[in-house]
Order: sequence, then C-alpha cells, then structure tokens
Amino acid sequence: MPDPEPFDPIAEAHRQWSVRWPEHADHMAAVTSVMRVQQLLLARIEATLQPFGLTFAAYEALRLLAFTRSGSMPMGKMGERLMVHPASVTNAIRRLEQRGLVERHVSAQDRRVVLATITDGGRAVARDATAALNQANFGIPALARDEMAQLTSMLRDVRVAVGDIADVPVGSSLFTGRTVRGSPRPQTGWAGP
Amino acid sequence: MPDPEPFDPIAEAHRQWSVRWPEHADHMAAVTSVMRVQQLLLARIEATLQPFGLTFAAYEALRLLAFTRSGSMPMGKMGERLMVHPASVTNAIRRLEQRGLVERHVSAQDRRVVLATITDGGRAVARDATAALNQANFGIPALARDEMAQLTSMLRDVRVAVGDIADVPVGSSLFTGRTVRGSPRPQTGWAGP
Repeated sequence: MPDPEPFDPIAEAHRQWSVRWPEHADHMAAVTSVMRVQQLLLARIEATLQPFGLTFAAYEALRLLAFTRSGSMPMGKMGERLMVHPASVTNAIRRLEQRGLVERHVSAQDRRVVLATITDGGRAVARDATAALNQANFGIPALARDEMAQLTSMLRDVRVAVGDIADVPVGSSLFTGRTVRGSPRPQTGWAGP
Repeated sequence: MPDPEPFDPIAEAHRQWSVRWPEHADHMAAVTSVMRVQQLLLARIEATLQPFGLTFAAYEALRLLAFTRSGSMPMGKMGERLMVHPASVTNAIRRLEQRGLVERHVSAQDRRVVLATITDGGRAVARDATAALNQANFGIPALARDEMAQLTSMLRDVRVAVGDIADVPVGSSLFTGRTVRGSPRPQTGWAGP
C-alpha cells in the first residue's frame, strides 16, 4: 500500500465550495466521499475475491443462492434482491455456469421462469470466498463494529431519502430481523423461496 | 420514482450474516450499503448532468480546471486530484476537448508535461452544471447539512483506515480549510498551480 496522502482532495473541494456555495458544501463532500470510498472498498474486495475468480457481483449472486433453502431462485427475483439490472444477473450467472458453480433450468411450475441453482462446487466456493471476505472484514479491518453499524444507519437515511427503501425503524429490520412494521415480510428474500 | 421497497435486501443480508457470522455482519452491511448508495447517487447525479452532456467524471475534471487560477493543470496532476487513473483523465479530457470545453497543449516550461486548459465555453458549462448539482444538493435533497458532515466524517475514517489519506484531525482540514497539522499544505490542489 502506498503511503497515505497528507493532502485530501475532498477536504480541498469542500474548502472551495465553502467559499463559493457554502450551503451546498456538506452535500458535495458527502456525495464525493461515497464515490471515493466505494471505489476504495470495491478494489479491496475484488482483490480478496480474485483468488476465487469472482467479481463482487458474481460473489453476491452465488452468496444469495447459497442462502436459499432449495439452492434455487428465479433469475428475475435475483435481480430484485441484488438490486441490479436483470442483464447484470444474466451475465454473472452465465459466467458462474461456465465454471460449473451454478446451473440454469426452466421452472417445472412455470415454464416462463428460469431458475438458477447453485451446485455443490458453487457452495464450496461461496463458503471459502465468504470466509476470506469475513477475514478481511470486507475491506475495512481497522474499524469497529459500532462505527460500521452507524455508517450503515446513515447510509440507510440516504436510501430512504432517495426512495430506495421505505422509512421503517432501523431497529425493527436491520438489527433484530423482526418483521418490518406495517408491512408483512415478503415470503422470499435472501432466505430463499 | 417507483414506490420505495418495504423490504430491504441489505437488512435481510445482515440478518443472514448475524445468524452465521455475527462478528462480521456489521462490516458486511456497511460495505454493501456504500456500494448501494454509490449506485443510487451516481444515477441521480448523472441524470442531473445529462442535459449538459457530462458524466460525473467529466464534470469533476471541468470543475477542477475551473477552480484553478490559471485555468490550466498538468494532466498527471489532475489524476492525483481527482483520485482516478491517468487513462480516465485522458478519456474525459479528450471528450471535453471535442466539445470545445477544454484545450490541450504541451507546457512551455516542461515539454514532457501536457496541460489541460478550460475554455470560456467550458467555464460556462462548469458554472451551469454546478448550479444544477447544487440545486439538487448532489442527489440527496432531503437530508440536513449536519447529517452530511457526519457522513463525510465517518467515510473519512474509512479512508484513513484503508490508507487513502493520512489521519489528520477533520476540524483542521475539512471544515475550516486551515493548514493540515504537522504537514505543510501542498502548493497546488483544486486551488490550482
């Protein structure tokens, strides 16, 4: 790792904004910080996953299937759960299929639905890659759990503000896993169909 | 904007992790939240910039040049300030040059250095695009300034933890613009050479 920079371009941009548009400087700095940290964390995560031949997107798809009880999920539902475009799911699953980690087949219940199913080999890779990511604390080993929980909570406020998720109390969903207040828990999810 | 989801896939992933690897659940959720929020904010920012024909990367390059006193900066230094790969700067500047917003020329002082210089047209686009982004509060209009400052501070802890920047007090750089303690302020930056 190169020596850290004593100079922080985001702090400097905040200073420039504060001179010209002070009421917008804090929003600019927060958004630019999200962009920067995403870039740093993604690079670290993908370095951790590289020995397993997985991108982060492919890892998330594999992990999602490994969490299901049956090992299967409709491709369309995977896109919803992974919060990505259906084409991204298709690409990730195709690459996993080529390596024998996932199989695709048409649902016996509904011929319009394509299911992805994790193989035993896929479960082994998901298990080992998860162990590696956990070992690396997802790229941020030096930070405490409560700081991370606070960061998640603040980013959750952003997600609520932009309409990504409904505004339900954090305590009822993220930290206890209880049913979300006022809306029934969907029957599927990372827990699977 | 579609109705927000009552179900939060990140909260569900946190629940799954808490059952299996409780000591890593908070890090997983924080990192996944950064990825998700980056994706949401980038989409909103690029929608705001679309009428100006700018990606966020192109906007940042133009804004950086507009902040310099001379309107010029060596391309290599732009990569450092924008925290991106030199090839990304080259691509962004080439597209801006094709639109007449930036000019490139070899430095008269050092023939090995290529300078990018913003044109009057580029300054006008930078001004209008910045006004639009400020008006949209960089994609997160509903959140208060102090929440944003706190988010920046937490993300700064992550940047320090992964070695992106040195650990200097936030108060001395981000919020007051004073010289960073223990290390002289570089002579150039967003403020220009």
